[in-house]
Amino acid sequence: MSARPEYPQTPLTRPTRRPERFSYDKHRIHRLVDEALVSHLAFEVDHRPVVLPMTHVRIGDDVYLHGSPGAGPFRGLERAPANVCLTVTVLDGIVLGRRYFTHSVNFRSVVVHGELGAVTGTEEKLRVLDALLEHIAPGRARDCEPPSRRELAATGIHRLSLAQSSFKERTGMPIEKDTGDTDGTEPAGAWSGVVPVNLAFGPPQSTDPAPPPDYVTGYARPHPGAARAHA
Amino acid sequence: MSARPEYPQTPLTRPTRRPERFSYDKHRIHRLVDEALVSHLAFEVDHRPVVLPMTHVRIGDDVYLHGSPGAGPFRGLERAPANVCLTVTVLDGIVLGRRYFTHSVNFRSVVVHGELGAVTGTEEKLRVLDALLEHIAPGRARDCEPPSRRELAATGIHRLSLAQSSFKERTGMPIEKDTGDTDGTEPAGAWSGVVPVNLAFGPPQSTDPAPPPDYVTGYARPHPGAARAHA
Repeated sequence: MSARPEYPQTPLTRPTRRPERFSYDKHRIHRLVDEALVSHLAFEVDHRPVVLPMTHVRIGDDVYLHGSPGAGPFRGLERAPANVCLTVTVLDGIVLGRRYFTHSVNFRSVVVHGELGAVTGTEEKLRVLDALLEHIAPGRARDCEPPSRRELAATGIHRLSLAQSSFKERTGMPIEKDTGDTDGTEPAGAWSGVVPVNLAFGPPQSTDPAPPPDYVTGYARPHPGAARAHA
Repeated sequence: MSARPEYPQTPLTRPTRRPERFSYDKHRIHRLVDEALVSHLAFEVDHRPVVLPMTHVRIGDDVYLHGSPGAGPFRGLERAPANVCLTVTVLDGIVLGRRYFTHSVNFRSVVVHGELGAVTGTEEKLRVLDALLEHIAPGRARDCEPPSRRELAATGIHRLSLAQSSFKERTGMPIEKDTGDTDGTEPAGAWSGVVPVNLAFGPPQSTDPAPPPDYVTGYARPHPGAARAHA
């Protein structure tokens, strides 16, 4: 049996603290990127860092970002790629310890370092837009009208490789013995535990008289087919 | 009646696109920062942008970030503040248009530009930690044991002013007339509408035999007292 495939650790992706919380497992990285609806892209403008929320989709070992070609992070990319960092975070729980110090949050995150470049070919742009619609609402692409030539020109698609990426998570209960100030027994005090956090999807809102399709009424993240798609 | 207080527009916070979606209203900025449990901090390491998830709390016109003083974004701050960008994003809905081009997401975000500096005074650190616990779970601080001297020294608290911040949002239904490719009538095609997105909080998990306090069983964002606190 071979080991699960991993992305290599590099100077940019190596843990600086708590290495036990990191992973380079491709499946875990892909699954989290596929589950998340929003990511955050950091880039530089006039030597200052800027971070903005994005929608994204993964195809294989690449993440694609969607946005107007005139928007801040994407300007000039058709001339030269830029160094960026993309972070995908899913909050899983609020960790309430007995002491101030043992409060935390449960989360999963993927941090990607690399060069962001513009996708210019019509076929690749269409392929990414298909995947993006399927990422947002699996089943959606076949129901919708594809972009016109003018719409396609007004749509920016940008590629970032996952080659330099890492996964990090915190799970489980508060760690009361981690403070260095106790004798190994749990301190008395407040109730301790975790409040689980999930995304919830409300009843669809529409001005459309037709009933919504199943992928809308049964909306869920990760979507029910995701485990199979990644098996 | 005076106008609602606003933060000034500056070269860093001025909109580059869709100015109608921006606001500088202090109340809206404060409310979103107070509602969100996670924010994303961008900073530079060796002239490259990096973005990491954070927990935060607002006090007045400042945001405070919590993290180990040894963690990437915080190293060296006790010697000199660093240029950073902090973004708070809340996803409110998935916008499904009839056409590929009219898909979008409803969201609210705050983007803050400024200098991040270390908070070193014991009293200010304690005041921020009180506020941080109340931000995460209102009612929590009085139930918990405050940090020891050793724990306080191991806790990094860092301050960022909201003076250069902007609010942006997208709300409502898909905009089918926005494509430039229609004659002003809605195109036929797929069901269109919005899937609302919210955070949901599950039943508390604990190894504690005592029942959880009310602020845990009734956990909600924004918390029920928030509107009153900001009135």
